[in-house]
Amino acid sequence: MKIHIVFRVLGLLSVIISLTMVFPLIWSIIDGTPDTIAFLMSMTLGIGIGTILYLLGDRSREYAELNVREAFAVVSLSWVMASVVGALPFYMGEYLPTFADAFFEAMSGFSTTGATVFTDIESNPRGILFWRSLTHWIGGMGIIVLSLAILPFIGVGGMQLFRAEVPGPTPEKLSPRIQQTALMLWAVYVVISAAQTVVLMLCGLDLFDSLTHTFGTMATGGFSPYNDSIAAFRSPLIEWVIILFMFLAGTNFVLHLLALRGKPGSFWKDEEFRFYVKFTLLSIAVVTVFLLIKGHYGSFSDTFRNSAFQVISIMTTTGYVTSDFNLWPQALRLLMLLLMFAGGCAGSTGGSMKQVRLMILAKRVKVEINRLLHPQQVLRVRFNKQVLSLDVISSVTAFYILYMMFFVGFSLIIITITGLDLETGIASVAATLGNIGPGLGGVGAVENYSFFNMPAKLILSFCMLLGRLELFSVVMLFVKGTWRS
Amino acid sequence: MKIHIVFRVLGLLSVIISLTMVFPLIWSIIDGTPDTIAFLMSMTLGIGIGTILYLLGDRSREYAELNVREAFAVVSLSWVMASVVGALPFYMGEYLPTFADAFFEAMSGFSTTGATVFTDIESNPRGILFWRSLTHWIGGMGIIVLSLAILPFIGVGGMQLFRAEVPGPTPEKLSPRIQQTALMLWAVYVVISAAQTVVLMLCGLDLFDSLTHTFGTMATGGFSPYNDSIAAFRSPLIEWVIILFMFLAGTNFVLHLLALRGKPGSFWKDEEFRFYVKFTLLSIAVVTVFLLIKGHYGSFSDTFRNSAFQVISIMTTTGYVTSDFNLWPQALRLLMLLLMFAGGCAGSTGGSMKQVRLMILAKRVKVEINRLLHPQQVLRVRFNKQVLSLDVISSVTAFYILYMMFFVGFSLIIITITGLDLETGIASVAATLGNIGPGLGGVGAVENYSFFNMPAKLILSFCMLLGRLELFSVVMLFVKGTWRS
Repeated sequence: MKIHIVFRVLGLLSVIISLTMVFPLIWSIIDGTPDTIAFLMSMTLGIGIGTILYLLGDRSREYAELNVREAFAVVSLSWVMASVVGALPFYMGEYLPTFADAFFEAMSGFSTTGATVFTDIESNPRGILFWRSLTHWIGGMGIIVLSLAILPFIGVGGMQLFRAEVPGPTPEKLSPRIQQTALMLWAVYVVISAAQTVVLMLCGLDLFDSLTHTFGTMATGGFSPYNDSIAAFRSPLIEWVIILFMFLAGTNFVLHLLALRGKPGSFWKDEEFRFYVKFTLLSIAVVTVFLLIKGHYGSFSDTFRNSAFQVISIMTTTGYVTSDFNLWPQALRLLMLLLMFAGGCAGSTGGSMKQVRLMILAKRVKVEINRLLHPQQVLRVRFNKQVLSLDVISSVTAFYILYMMFFVGFSLIIITITGLDLETGIASVAATLGNIGPGLGGVGAVENYSFFNMPAKLILSFCMLLGRLELFSVVMLFVKGTWRS
Repeated sequence: MKIHIVFRVLGLLSVIISLTMVFPLIWSIIDGTPDTIAFLMSMTLGIGIGTILYLLGDRSREYAELNVREAFAVVSLSWVMASVVGALPFYMGEYLPTFADAFFEAMSGFSTTGATVFTDIESNPRGILFWRSLTHWIGGMGIIVLSLAILPFIGVGGMQLFRAEVPGPTPEKLSPRIQQTALMLWAVYVVISAAQTVVLMLCGLDLFDSLTHTFGTMATGGFSPYNDSIAAFRSPLIEWVIILFMFLAGTNFVLHLLALRGKPGSFWKDEEFRFYVKFTLLSIAVVTVFLLIKGHYGSFSDTFRNSAFQVISIMTTTGYVTSDFNLWPQALRLLMLLLMFAGGCAGSTGGSMKQVRLMILAKRVKVEINRLLHPQQVLRVRFNKQVLSLDVISSVTAFYILYMMFFVGFSLIIITITGLDLETGIASVAATLGNIGPGLGGVGAVENYSFFNMPAKLILSFCMLLGRLELFSVVMLFVKGTWRS
């Protein structure tokens, strides 16, 4: 392990995260609230620690290439580092009681999960709330750039293991150079975010609400400065705007890039996108019909809007709430729990298993059943008109098995150390591993995670990290080979 | 589809099942209870229907070879036919209110599940109770003979898809002829059953209790003539005897055959058996320690015995109960739910996913993670010292994915049509699909399935069939290619 590079990367990251605190700092100065001091202290500490780490990173040695394992390790540690630094304002300003709480909130932000340990969100100053939402946006951008620009260039690896080999829209075709690709994706992310902010302001929200909710939407995060989440606005128009942008955030950003470059046809040409659209529409239809039959909401328009909002919010792993789906009929509660395993498209800010993996798994089972009828047939799965290699199918399957193993294993651990009922325990792991936020039961749509004990909070934070980096990257940290020189 | 062969097989089966009713008939005559009439009517009807079906089977046509698909279809329909005929005594004697209930109980018997719709078991005459238990024993023998003697000879196919190619103890090495193999396995099943009956009688049980509990144990079924299941005897000795025989019933019967032929070393040479032993011991240890810490039972011996009993009962998919595990601490309730997905060894009477599949899946994930470190490595999984073919790994994985799809899909359906809470709904599907019987919540260890509505009872019966025939055989019934001539 080239430890000096790890130190330099993490040091640099600490400085950058600290510098981004200048934005919440501005809000706190405008409002004249005491969180100004928390931000100044955090920035000083973060820049200090970062500088020391960077200097420890022995600049005299040559910058060496990282191998795949090391790259994974650095990526995982980066999210941990960002969360440690990002936790400082919550902790130093005493807005959260323990550092474990502050770390949970920051990891929930940077991993774009949106699970909160604040019991009364609105009692916090705007600076703190802005920082909380900004961590989403930074985390979301990090994922886009990492998964679409950086990882494909280091070669194979967990997150990109299949996407790099799965035929589909690739940024390489657009630009062969890594910095330029990263820059273009960053630009797309900024452009769509700016569009949402402007639209929300046109709908009557002020700049603060527009920005924070844009951050939560574009990152498929889910933090809102309001206790009632999106329900606080009581505005169908705003709900529809957020539905639209959540859906866009759950789409592969390469498609957005291609569209902005004048190729809007790329959307429908992509098999994953078509599946995503159909899956979403089907789920909304099922939920709408079920709720209409049960007469859960008054009018059709209320039923349809709430169905569309919650389905897209959960499926894209955003976690915003307009209506407490924990109170829906039992079958729909289970459906929402299942949708937590879907996730957005690959190359989006959405978490969880991703649409493309579900597709490949479904196709695979279909082929296997056909093979029973015609044993001489080979295992051939097509995606975007091309035949997938056995390696790709194999790694998608392994991902699914590993995801289920982690889900089950951490559910057992969480229930063991908390004694919670099965539903709450299972849902808390599904909602953090899938980077969603709200779950069912005790962590239901309008509840929070403050009641978990300290070890449980740390474990759930770890689940968020695992989910965000698609398991393998984090698993690399615990494989002995990674740390050998 | 050679429909005339299907008719002849099902007709013959109907006659055979009807003839086995002579055993419960004897009990009813001894007791002088009114179920005598129910059995006589059922036998007449069953033999009549069977004969008609057999004659409809157009004997003039040559007996043709069945292809794989047709064989699967016949196997699946055989279990349905047996359950229809087996349901007659319950229905005609009015021991159960509807034919759906009677069918559920018979399918639960023949599929060796052990889920019951009787609310007060002990109120039934001994003839009916004996029949109920006998369906287990017949079903268990059917599975052993089918999976170890018949299916390997028709070639590949769902149930044997992997076992036929997985290195391990095979009956072919013992005898190349199908009838002889079937006969030997039948003999082993009878010998071990006789041994258990004798041991239970030595422990003080009468012939009726010894036989019915032997049937429930050897088939890993779980029906008991007592409302309190095994707890009714209040005898640690009897519990230990049943623990031992449940464990034996969950073992590959080829190993028993080899052992009886003087090769007891075969047990430890088989990698699946070693895994089964370790997995069982580890689970018992975890449950024991947890219950001791919580002080759930008084003494160590009570804790250890109840832990061993419930772990082995659930893992082998038997479903006998000595203590209501639904009242255990939450983490152990979840653990029991998870153990419902394990199952016995391949070639045993146990249901669910089976030990060998879990092993192969676990090894596969390990290899995939290693492949991230060393991408040039090929996917190579060893079992019993031999490298498994990609086909085997692939079909085991597809089985797992399909199993989870059915589990999730039927949970959704059951909860939709019943409105039950998630825990009860999920557990009822896990417990029927895995051929276990008791689940959690509303279908917890000491509850029953009588409160489900009619459609739900039929769907859960279908789950039992699916699980018992390891999915693919039943899926074949719904693939259009099967019915084409």
